[in-house]
Amino acid sequence: MSNKKPIIIDGLQYCRWDRAYFESLKNSGITAVHITLVYHETARETLTRFAQWNHYFELYQDLIMPIRSSKDIILAITSERIGILLGAQNCSPIDDEIGLVEVMRQQGLLIMQLSYNNQSLLASGCYEQHDGGITRFGRQVISEMNRVGMIIDMSHSAERSTLEAIDLSSRPLCISHANPSTAHSALRNKSATVLRALTQRDGLIGFSLYPFHLPNGSQCTLTDFCHMIADTAALIGIEHIGIGSDLCLNQPQHVLEWMRNGRWSKTIDYGEGSSNNAGWPEPLSWFKNSTGMMNIYQGLLDHGFNQHECNQIIGTNWLNFLKKGLVAI
Amino acid sequence: MSNKKPIIIDGLQYCRWDRAYFESLKNSGITAVHITLVYHETARETLTRFAQWNHYFELYQDLIMPIRSSKDIILAITSERIGILLGAQNCSPIDDEIGLVEVMRQQGLLIMQLSYNNQSLLASGCYEQHDGGITRFGRQVISEMNRVGMIIDMSHSAERSTLEAIDLSSRPLCISHANPSTAHSALRNKSATVLRALTQRDGLIGFSLYPFHLPNGSQCTLTDFCHMIADTAALIGIEHIGIGSDLCLNQPQHVLEWMRNGRWSKTIDYGEGSSNNAGWPEPLSWFKNSTGMMNIYQGLLDHGFNQHECNQIIGTNWLNFLKKGLVAI
Repeated sequence: MSNKKPIIIDGLQYCRWDRAYFESLKNSGITAVHITLVYHETARETLTRFAQWNHYFELYQDLIMPIRSSKDIILAITSERIGILLGAQNCSPIDDEIGLVEVMRQQGLLIMQLSYNNQSLLASGCYEQHDGGITRFGRQVISEMNRVGMIIDMSHSAERSTLEAIDLSSRPLCISHANPSTAHSALRNKSATVLRALTQRDGLIGFSLYPFHLPNGSQCTLTDFCHMIADTAALIGIEHIGIGSDLCLNQPQHVLEWMRNGRWSKTIDYGEGSSNNAGWPEPLSWFKNSTGMMNIYQGLLDHGFNQHECNQIIGTNWLNFLKKGLVAI
Repeated sequence: MSNKKPIIIDGLQYCRWDRAYFESLKNSGITAVHITLVYHETARETLTRFAQWNHYFELYQDLIMPIRSSKDIILAITSERIGILLGAQNCSPIDDEIGLVEVMRQQGLLIMQLSYNNQSLLASGCYEQHDGGITRFGRQVISEMNRVGMIIDMSHSAERSTLEAIDLSSRPLCISHANPSTAHSALRNKSATVLRALTQRDGLIGFSLYPFHLPNGSQCTLTDFCHMIADTAALIGIEHIGIGSDLCLNQPQHVLEWMRNGRWSKTIDYGEGSSNNAGWPEPLSWFKNSTGMMNIYQGLLDHGFNQHECNQIIGTNWLNFLKKGLVAI
């Protein structure tokens, strides 16, 4: 590794945010993180989340700064603060109103999933039995997100919806956190068809470290993980690969339940878990927190990737994708 | 008048916005307008109003542009588009949540009244029998508005509340649209005590052209109006005086009723009107629309003000006030 500090970008985290955590992020050498602002919050509730983050940006301005544009990423790097990219894991922040895409972008929502696990007003989620593809409202929203420079994320959406979104969008999409279903079959993972379509349109996939998305779950080894990346790079090209760890540290059980249940179910939905395994999964021994990014770097080197390629995967691919994606047309 | 196009700023309008109206504004030579985004809309409803304005900014980008910072005012001037400053006539956009001050500022709400005619969560309105001054929440909001560069407007607030706000605020306030009560006694007009306190702290008053605020109502002459300005300038200094026309053109009756009644009254409140005079007041013959600003310019010249002073009153005083007021601390 050269002396130059590598760019490290994590394409998804949802941790409990406080000074101690931001300090640990800083110590890990991370450059920027896409964090989940909301799961199922309405437009109004999303404003309260923005207000909370504004307060973090005020309190912890020595450690973090908001990314609102491409230029801000560079500013975060030069000012040695962690760049925070706010994103939504569902389209709930726009309620049923097309004009709220631009309003939310203006407020600093940079990335939005068209659905979480369920059917949304825009697209089908990967847990639905029927995948109806992109809805009428969904088409309008894709076009508006393209216009204002809000990045479309299809991590939790179903296959047909994802393929249609890729086709309808005039700009590259991301799947911020998921793995290839060829490596581990799971509703949340993505087929080779999806990965090819995504990357033929210059999209990016962030590899997930969430045990439910990995072969052998919490026992997945770093070698297996790097092997999965190498296989995928051979299929779609290394420039389309990043990391989206899906790291959820220090969060209480009720946050997991909010993620999985929102307000839609009277009975508990266990998502990727089960009634016998209702809590957070056991973390990977080599990815317990953001310092794991450098374990991945080393693992990739050991696997035979060169330094440039390792840098691409742990950060510069995301950097290039974000720089282009955040510009309004 | 010199050949240089004068800066003309109207400190309040609430017209029906469409291409024809923006064209008429442009033809009037106006530089920038503070427009009312909301009267009593909640935070969520305010987002819909922002969305509507974003749509106007997209549709009519040849004529108008949003002002979000001091720099934008200069950009509006150089690009020869009308600068639009969005403001709220009540504090309803922040609901009961301190963090929404910054959220709304970020979205582009530049000016906010602490109350309309009634008691608000922050201050008493000028129609209340009891004026309790600035509330506990109000103190927090003043401090937060000061911090983020959102201008405090006390046009509709009661006397004690206004004096307390002036005292509590670390930055100058405006009364965007009202007249001195010495010229015309009305609950909405301001005492000499208020005007002195406001301007001793570098605040600004925009003189209103709304007939209910004027001596002789709709019959008020241009000469009387200029006389009123001259008397006030002698009292508080010309640099603290601008125009805030309160022009409401092409609006249907239900908009007037929303202004006056919001959701608070089961019976009709006529505001400054009465059951015999429930509609919009008859406009002034010399201020039927924004071209009236140049009538005022000429009237002031005829009254004995010099060109520099006329320019101050019709625009540059507002310009200087806004340039300073919109900067975050």
